[in-house]
Amino acid sequence: MTRPALPDWRTTLPWPAVDVHKHARGRLGVVSGKATQTGAARLAARAGLRIGAGVVRILCPPDATAVIAPAIEAIMLTPFGSDEALAEAAANLDAVVIGPAAGINDATQANVRALAGTGAALVVDADGLTVFEGWPEDLFEVLDRDDVLTPHEGEFRRLFPVLLEQGREAAAAEAAKRAGAVVVLKGVATVIAAPDGRLSVNDNGTPWLATAGSGDVLAGMIAGLMAQRMDSFDAARAAVWMHAEAARGFGPGLIAEDLPERIPAVLAALYSQAV
Amino acid sequence: MTRPALPDWRTTLPWPAVDVHKHARGRLGVVSGKATQTGAARLAARAGLRIGAGVVRILCPPDATAVIAPAIEAIMLTPFGSDEALAEAAANLDAVVIGPAAGINDATQANVRALAGTGAALVVDADGLTVFEGWPEDLFEVLDRDDVLTPHEGEFRRLFPVLLEQGREAAAAEAAKRAGAVVVLKGVATVIAAPDGRLSVNDNGTPWLATAGSGDVLAGMIAGLMAQRMDSFDAARAAVWMHAEAARGFGPGLIAEDLPERIPAVLAALYSQAV
Amino acid sequence: MTRPALPDWRTTLPWPAVDVHKHARGRLGVVSGKATQTGAARLAARAGLRIGAGVVRILCPPDATAVIAPAIEAIMLTPFGSDEALAEAAANLDAVVIGPAAGINDATQANVRALAGTGAALVVDADGLTVFEGWPEDLFEVLDRDDVLTPHEGEFRRLFPVLLEQGREAAAAEAAKRAGAVVVLKGVATVIAAPDGRLSVNDNGTPWLATAGSGDVLAGMIAGLMAQRMDSFDAARAAVWMHAEAARGFGPGLIAEDLPERIPAVLAALYSQAV
Amino acid sequence: MTRPALPDWRTTLPWPAVDVHKHARGRLGVVSGKATQTGAARLAARAGLRIGAGVVRILCPPDATAVIAPAIEAIMLTPFGSDEALAEAAANLDAVVIGPAAGINDATQANVRALAGTGAALVVDADGLTVFEGWPEDLFEVLDRDDVLTPHEGEFRRLFPVLLEQGREAAAAEAAKRAGAVVVLKGVATVIAAPDGRLSVNDNGTPWLATAGSGDVLAGMIAGLMAQRMDSFDAARAAVWMHAEAARGFGPGLIAEDLPERIPAVLAALYSQAV
Repeated sequence: MTRPALPDWRTTLPWPAVDVHKHARGRLGVVSGKATQTGAARLAARAGLRIGAGVVRILCPPDATAVIAPAIEAIMLTPFGSDEALAEAAANLDAVVIGPAAGINDATQANVRALAGTGAALVVDADGLTVFEGWPEDLFEVLDRDDVLTPHEGEFRRLFPVLLEQGREAAAAEAAKRAGAVVVLKGVATVIAAPDGRLSVNDNGTPWLATAGSGDVLAGMIAGLMAQRMDSFDAARAAVWMHAEAARGFGPGLIAEDLPERIPAVLAALYSQAV
Repeated sequence: MTRPALPDWRTTLPWPAVDVHKHARGRLGVVSGKATQTGAARLAARAGLRIGAGVVRILCPPDATAVIAPAIEAIMLTPFGSDEALAEAAANLDAVVIGPAAGINDATQANVRALAGTGAALVVDADGLTVFEGWPEDLFEVLDRDDVLTPHEGEFRRLFPVLLEQGREAAAAEAAKRAGAVVVLKGVATVIAAPDGRLSVNDNGTPWLATAGSGDVLAGMIAGLMAQRMDSFDAARAAVWMHAEAARGFGPGLIAEDLPERIPAVLAALYSQAV
Repeated sequence: MTRPALPDWRTTLPWPAVDVHKHARGRLGVVSGKATQTGAARLAARAGLRIGAGVVRILCPPDATAVIAPAIEAIMLTPFGSDEALAEAAANLDAVVIGPAAGINDATQANVRALAGTGAALVVDADGLTVFEGWPEDLFEVLDRDDVLTPHEGEFRRLFPVLLEQGREAAAAEAAKRAGAVVVLKGVATVIAAPDGRLSVNDNGTPWLATAGSGDVLAGMIAGLMAQRMDSFDAARAAVWMHAEAARGFGPGLIAEDLPERIPAVLAALYSQAV
Repeated sequence: MTRPALPDWRTTLPWPAVDVHKHARGRLGVVSGKATQTGAARLAARAGLRIGAGVVRILCPPDATAVIAPAIEAIMLTPFGSDEALAEAAANLDAVVIGPAAGINDATQANVRALAGTGAALVVDADGLTVFEGWPEDLFEVLDRDDVLTPHEGEFRRLFPVLLEQGREAAAAEAAKRAGAVVVLKGVATVIAAPDGRLSVNDNGTPWLATAGSGDVLAGMIAGLMAQRMDSFDAARAAVWMHAEAARGFGPGLIAEDLPERIPAVLAALYSQAV
């Protein structure tokens, strides 16, 4: 367990090479919920684009197309009608977010599994976690060490019913081992644990993040870094820190829509230290 | 009656605890009008989110879904088709705004009553007041002391036909007693009265607030504070003052859309005095 | 003819009284074109709201409802299906803009005439002028001295075929007399003429205003001041000057959407001189 | 080949004359993709409007109308149902962008050809290039020296399979000769070549431009200058430089939506040197 004064992830941030093009810079997908619940995906996609994924695509149920299409410009859109179609649409993606406003139903379960069969690294959040309550092994068996789970404590308990009795850090460490994936246990001091034993506790948390959509933005930030080939554990640590830094810079009155727009300032400060 | 130089509500503002999560920070609902009249609900919801409600949900007639869905991100959306469905959708909410652009019809009356039967504290505004013209007791009998009515003088007269002859302060005081709820009598010097006799006159009013949608924003601000468990009388006093402060900071050319975006600056100034 | 160093309209700007409410501050209507052509009305409405009209309502063909509704918040919306329905929808309005993207067809002619029969002062622009090419007397006979025509030179020639041979100032003066309404002959030095012989040449014109939608914003600004009971000739002079001032403050790269957002700064500078 | 320290295109930028009107300032068209893929056209259109085209119109498949209409204000919209209808809609335009998100299909090929038969200068980008893979002569025979192709290296290879073996500058020069049009070979050092032998290498490239939609904005900027009657080779050089300058000014976190909004600052700096 380490709590670095100067986080070592700073040296691994994926600044674009001088001759990079957008596809090489990373392709991110975000799975949207149904027509009345598309905001979460739009927040995550915007965050992923801001943090540097070169190409970002929202994958949505057909009925959500008319809602999302007028609200995006640089972000792209592909409707899908089944889990097979989703996997096909994700075939060329480097990372995918699934879970925010996805719906607690069989389709979400099938979609998570379908995506796990692609080459994309996954960030599984919110409903994408909850749908495996009672049979978490069904989720764990399809994950690999590049994937990331981002539960708050309630969602964590659904997958790991008694682990929190050991304390948050031990619980996250054990959860990562069982899941075979990085676990981000969110809270005032978010714990990030990798299946190989690496563990980190974030130290710049802020209560301003307790606002709807904040977690969707975080999922998009983590996946946006992963799409740029950052190690998943480092991506999670970096995104958690930057997410909180963006919120601290804003202060009272923060809403989730503000967070992606603060990413450039947070990145600029890190970049000026990096070069 | 008190006119404090340093409003005592400042010490009761609901700053988030260090370990708060979004649901604990308060859940706000806003009832939308029909498809052509959804702007008022969106303004109120945005204001409630900015002032700190952790989760904000617009509850809308089914035909308004396609209008609202593309225009929101962090704010959530639930369509309802009847007053029973509305009450069910509001079951877990801490506070609800009803009235802005609701429509002057039987459905609005039924919706107010249905919401009064839930555990949510209500802010009843605009059409939600007007529909009880002629039978105000039907409204008063379902309210309790945590609810807030926000009439301008025209709407006040519809519920309390002759009270204003006593002057605004006495009228508001008597109205609060009759209604058994907090009454916010809007105007250049807005009067806030509680059924237990507390009364306050706001002293930072500004004519720049005389613009369409301004009242919708105020309703959202009051309810946003109430959702965070602030006492209704204090929430009303605080919101009225912050609403005017936001407008004064903007000055000429203000439109209602500007107000929610000014809340962070107003909150930041209060926060810096509070901590 | 006067070219005042310090425009006298500055003393007649309609700053809101301390106890004003939104309806008393003026009600503005803007008639929208069909579903693919609603942007002009939205620009004019936004400008009218920013310049101080207390209530602004877009009146639109039924098929345009779904386009406009998601794009507005404080601005209100009423669909109309005939010229009679339009007049009815405008019954309580103080001023109405008609013409921007209205369509060159019989319906636009009928709509102008229907509005002229209401109590609202009119700003007739663009297609609202062009539809009277060949029979301008049909327009002039329904106008009165509170109405304003806002042609560029091409539109001016359609209503007054040879007048421009006399020069722009004489032409505008004669046109105002014939029309029995204020004429705003747009150009680098916009000429404003009243039927009673008052005439003014604007002196702060800027080529940055040569961008699509700029005229729609001007129409909304003029009507927004008229809705606040400013004399039509003064409203036209003031709006033309403020419109140019807003553009000059922005400079290269200006698009019409920027103009309403610059109105607060222009108003603030005038207000600081006025009080 | 020249790499000027002070680019000579700066003296040929089309600042508006004092008495210009919007149509004389240049009319730009942008062809949109289908309903799920309209963002590229909106980005290009916004960029063309910001860089000074007086009138900008998106030309879209009928099913895209409902998506685009709510998202534009000053930009205009015309649906088209066939290549003939597209050519008719473009009859009065000075320049047209085709290709971004156009779709790789026969319709796009037919649309490029139809537009080439109008008087408008073309910027052919993205799918508009790719659809001629295998039969590039079909494209070249309809182009003239005022037209511009904007391939990245992948697209360049589809039209000129082996040329890049000669190096980027020689390849672009030869390509321009073969195509009979200006070729903009994009990359970290974008090469601009004219069929008459003029060639320039841009020297202010930045990796922040490696983000989705960046190329769409560039196409709109080039065409926006061409619509203002700037020589196509100079327009391409100027737009490439300004596009990069806008990105460098923003730095980390840039997304394509930021670029059009940075054009005013870039233009203002150039304007202050020009006057």
